[in-house]
Amino acid sequence: MGAIDELISELARLPGIGRKTAQRLTFHLLQQPSEQAGRLASALVAVTERVRSCDECGNLTEEQPCGICRDPRRDPAVLCVVEEASTVLLVDRSTDFRGRYHVLGGRLSPLDGVGPESLRLDDLVSRVHDGGIREVILATNPSMEGEVTATYIQQLLAGRDVRVTRLARGLPMGGDLEYVDGVTLAHALVARQELS
Amino acid sequence: MGAIDELISELARLPGIGRKTAQRLTFHLLQQPSEQAGRLASALVAVTERVRSCDECGNLTEEQPCGICRDPRRDPAVLCVVEEASTVLLVDRSTDFRGRYHVLGGRLSPLDGVGPESLRLDDLVSRVHDGGIREVILATNPSMEGEVTATYIQQLLAGRDVRVTRLARGLPMGGDLEYVDGVTLAHALVARQELS
Repeated sequence: MGAIDELISELARLPGIGRKTAQRLTFHLLQQPSEQAGRLASALVAVTERVRSCDECGNLTEEQPCGICRDPRRDPAVLCVVEEASTVLLVDRSTDFRGRYHVLGGRLSPLDGVGPESLRLDDLVSRVHDGGIREVILATNPSMEGEVTATYIQQLLAGRDVRVTRLARGLPMGGDLEYVDGVTLAHALVARQELS
Repeated sequence: MGAIDELISELARLPGIGRKTAQRLTFHLLQQPSEQAGRLASALVAVTERVRSCDECGNLTEEQPCGICRDPRRDPAVLCVVEEASTVLLVDRSTDFRGRYHVLGGRLSPLDGVGPESLRLDDLVSRVHDGGIREVILATNPSMEGEVTATYIQQLLAGRDVRVTRLARGLPMGGDLEYVDGVTLAHALVARQELS
């Protein structure tokens, strides 16, 4: 297999990139100065060599513990529990949350063989058990598995002296009522807010 | 800048890949065995190191001349003229064309400063002048620039003993008449074919 076909195949392995897009990207790179492909190659190598999970929270990091866990300006008493490390970036960039995180590394999904032992739940219980945690915000996905995972964690932490909360459900911004699913609409009605 | 941000930035330089997609791809790669990112990195380096333009036709190749120009089973008397090397693969995979190619390396576009001297037109005239070419198929894009380029080449080759043809215009497969533009529809009517 030639170098061009090889690159097309490797690009086409990426999620959401089909063979046609992979071809387009390959020919685009061939038309650029070769430094661009070189920089992309170095970035790929660097990321796999340097990036590890934070021992503390499970976030992806180049240092131990990660920048968020080390940041003295962040409130160590509030934990935001997310399924994947990629969500940390998302929550941190778009909200003003300034506590710490706990990455589960997935969601409960018995059909896929993912039980509680596959997730970083013991670590979460330890962190709460060690004390100093005032609130655990469950930011698992608003999917069936995410809900089940949230409920499981809620029961796991029941009886401990910690507040357990869940991200609000309701209408997404910029949507049209006509395209909102029934479950969301029902949630939005139940959790309706007073206008002040 | 950290390794993760670096990779996101490099991926986001690719056409059609925004920052959000670049993030998704980066976190996807971080969840895979590190060999996958390594293979992609090697493929990128290999492609920029090994791939060059064919001296004969301008196609991208790892050998001189390219596999198509060297293939004895292909008809050297028919040339398919395309704008970009990426089109060679497209025509070769989806049609049963078994002649050779000539890559122009662009299209005439005076507004962007691309004149005849920027394209591999002298090479094309030489190939025709050297003899043995029976037909030149103009497969430039069905765009304004592509049309102008085709007309220019047609005039350039006028008077030489060579048949100059152009890809047929008409309705695209799988389309709906309602969404076809007027120019295409007019072409399709003029070039209407007898049903036999």
